[in-house]
Amino acid sequence: MTARQLHIPSISSQRLNDSIHQTSLWGAAHRWGSLATETGMARLALNDDDAKVRRWFVEQTSSLGCKVTVDQMGNIFAVLPGRLEGPPTAIGSHLDTQPSGGRYDGVLGVLSGLEALRTIIENKIVTNYPIALINWTNEEGARFPKSLASSGVWAGVIPLESSWNLKEVAGEATQKSELEQQGPHLETTGRKVGVVQGAQAIRWYTVTVHGRETHTGTTPFSTRSDAMLCAAKIIVASNTIAKANNGLMSTGIIHASPGSANTVPGKVVFSLDIRHPSDDTLTIMDKQLQEEATRIAREDSERGCTIDWRLDTDAKATHFDKDCIRCVQESADAVVGRDMTMELTSGAGHDSCMTALVCPTSMIFAPSKDGISHNPVEYTSPEDCATCAQVILGALMRYDDLRLQRS
Amino acid sequence: MTARQLHIPSISSQRLNDSIHQTSLWGAAHRWGSLATETGMARLALNDDDAKVRRWFVEQTSSLGCKVTVDQMGNIFAVLPGRLEGPPTAIGSHLDTQPSGGRYDGVLGVLSGLEALRTIIENKIVTNYPIALINWTNEEGARFPKSLASSGVWAGVIPLESSWNLKEVAGEATQKSELEQQGPHLETTGRKVGVVQGAQAIRWYTVTVHGRETHTGTTPFSTRSDAMLCAAKIIVASNTIAKANNGLMSTGIIHASPGSANTVPGKVVFSLDIRHPSDDTLTIMDKQLQEEATRIAREDSERGCTIDWRLDTDAKATHFDKDCIRCVQESADAVVGRDMTMELTSGAGHDSCMTALVCPTSMIFAPSKDGISHNPVEYTSPEDCATCAQVILGALMRYDDLRLQRS
Repeated sequence: MTARQLHIPSISSQRLNDSIHQTSLWGAAHRWGSLATETGMARLALNDDDAKVRRWFVEQTSSLGCKVTVDQMGNIFAVLPGRLEGPPTAIGSHLDTQPSGGRYDGVLGVLSGLEALRTIIENKIVTNYPIALINWTNEEGARFPKSLASSGVWAGVIPLESSWNLKEVAGEATQKSELEQQGPHLETTGRKVGVVQGAQAIRWYTVTVHGRETHTGTTPFSTRSDAMLCAAKIIVASNTIAKANNGLMSTGIIHASPGSANTVPGKVVFSLDIRHPSDDTLTIMDKQLQEEATRIAREDSERGCTIDWRLDTDAKATHFDKDCIRCVQESADAVVGRDMTMELTSGAGHDSCMTALVCPTSMIFAPSKDGISHNPVEYTSPEDCATCAQVILGALMRYDDLRLQRS
Repeated sequence: MTARQLHIPSISSQRLNDSIHQTSLWGAAHRWGSLATETGMARLALNDDDAKVRRWFVEQTSSLGCKVTVDQMGNIFAVLPGRLEGPPTAIGSHLDTQPSGGRYDGVLGVLSGLEALRTIIENKIVTNYPIALINWTNEEGARFPKSLASSGVWAGVIPLESSWNLKEVAGEATQKSELEQQGPHLETTGRKVGVVQGAQAIRWYTVTVHGRETHTGTTPFSTRSDAMLCAAKIIVASNTIAKANNGLMSTGIIHASPGSANTVPGKVVFSLDIRHPSDDTLTIMDKQLQEEATRIAREDSERGCTIDWRLDTDAKATHFDKDCIRCVQESADAVVGRDMTMELTSGAGHDSCMTALVCPTSMIFAPSKDGISHNPVEYTSPEDCATCAQVILGALMRYDDLRLQRS
């Protein structure tokens, strides 16, 4: 592909940031500062505030000339016609938030897309192919407990019925919310645009270590089968193995049975989260850990323990489309210069991992203060928000042009 | 002390074992074999079955000529007069069991004492000083959740009101029961009598590791403060330090917050049980672990964690009375020969740790199959039960004689 000289108009930072904070009134919560904008958000999927912002989204895109449709999962597709027929080139994210979320995660993506559409209309640009702006339903999985459930149905990998039948996470919603981070990579390096290459492979295990319940005071070490000691050694080993492979392994959940201060646990169950950008390396890490854990259980846990591994999740790595990535990279180069961009692999799952199964996809990261999202204090500066929208517009127009070149 | 030649009559193994299994009908539960005696016990303190065995105990001791009194905690004291006035030389244990307990723990102690009294009466022996047989109430702490509460009140170290006000552990009793072991020392060495020298010092801590909640997929190791990894390393270190000092350290309870598979825990709380026969060595072990844990938290947990230590229990080591120990040792030597005895330190707490605060005390261990008690399959052979009763009788008469020599 040789990029032709495209005229990319400038987005309006003021209009974008006004939209972010005006729509944040629907669901504002968790005040953390004195300024009007210094609150977090609690706009759970399809609640009253989400209904208001969804209605506003339909009004705004309709008034721009978009044809708006809503699918069976509530995903909203606003399509602006192009000169030619064909599937739209789409931008998408989500307007729902965590119960204790912030003003940017998802919202910045949708409203940057809206700002790109507004700029296109304002500048009387007609793209070659239709342009779509998508608001995915319940990306967070905070109210209905399965994240990416609606984009998953759209992509055909999750049955419609199973997403329809998700039960609301009633009062537990707040407890279940998690601090999610895109990682501090952009902030620590001072870069402005993350050009996302794909998402890591993920395996989740539930590991059960079986030992023998014995009294802490009367059982000499030599006759123990201490499931807690064995589990602790495996967790330490998982960290060592992950580091040696430049991957990640973590334990977030652990239970010891029977759970008494003076009883050596006979059973310990813990979660193991393994991630690596390469499927092959993840498989190697997994194998190394299972071998080392087996050794620990057999030789390094007093009289020995046994281990059961239950594989709960096995998600392959996502590799975004090379052309889509290049359009984002070139757009970012034009807006902030190559030195201010950074190639990244997403650590977490996103709707884009679902769409990537069906159509060419890429993804943009904007800098988040301290790398924090899923938290009321989540913050992206107005300038960085504007950069994000400008890069999206440029990527969109480049891909639209690429499609024409190819046709 | 020079042991005078004492005539110690023989106890009746048949009578002792009959009493064990006849009284086990009150509270028999948890059948594990086909023979009549192959059940465990569920005779919780002061329940209907315990009331029946307590009534039987009073009848039996009264018929032997004992004066029976019951104190405010329900401890029963059956005192057989001697030739001389003075405080009685006492034998004691407990007739209550764990909800999922066995036929010997406590029961063998009380009924061996009863068999000793029966043998004394049968042989028309009048001891120099009164002999008492004591049944302590709620030794187990299984129904009213504080073990040794009644002997503790008697010893003056637990206020009467606090033991009176213990609330019943309703349906939870079974869950709270623990597998308690005297340790497999006797069985693994083939010895028949454990001559207990004292009980270990015990410290219980609740350790809280504070890190930072972050996403498992997006947070590089270099920016983590992983409370789970830090806790796992401390648990592994506790084991290493305990072994180096010939002591014990164990973790039976652990909780990670917020408890999500894809969140690096920001907080992990775990129990730490430290034991050693020497108070000084326990203090050294404690100090070594706190120093190592501080180092791990500061230098070896990625970006670092902090630790809070809450001391929940700090029990000094119990050192039994040298003369009492010698009476037991000499009695055991006479019954089974020195080679079949073993000097032991109790790993767990017993009523004798309370009485030792007030009067000269020692303790005898009988062999338990696989070292297991607090379990329906708990088993001591009829021969070993008889040996236990014979050693108790001999120790009792030796101590009675010693008191006379000294007076």
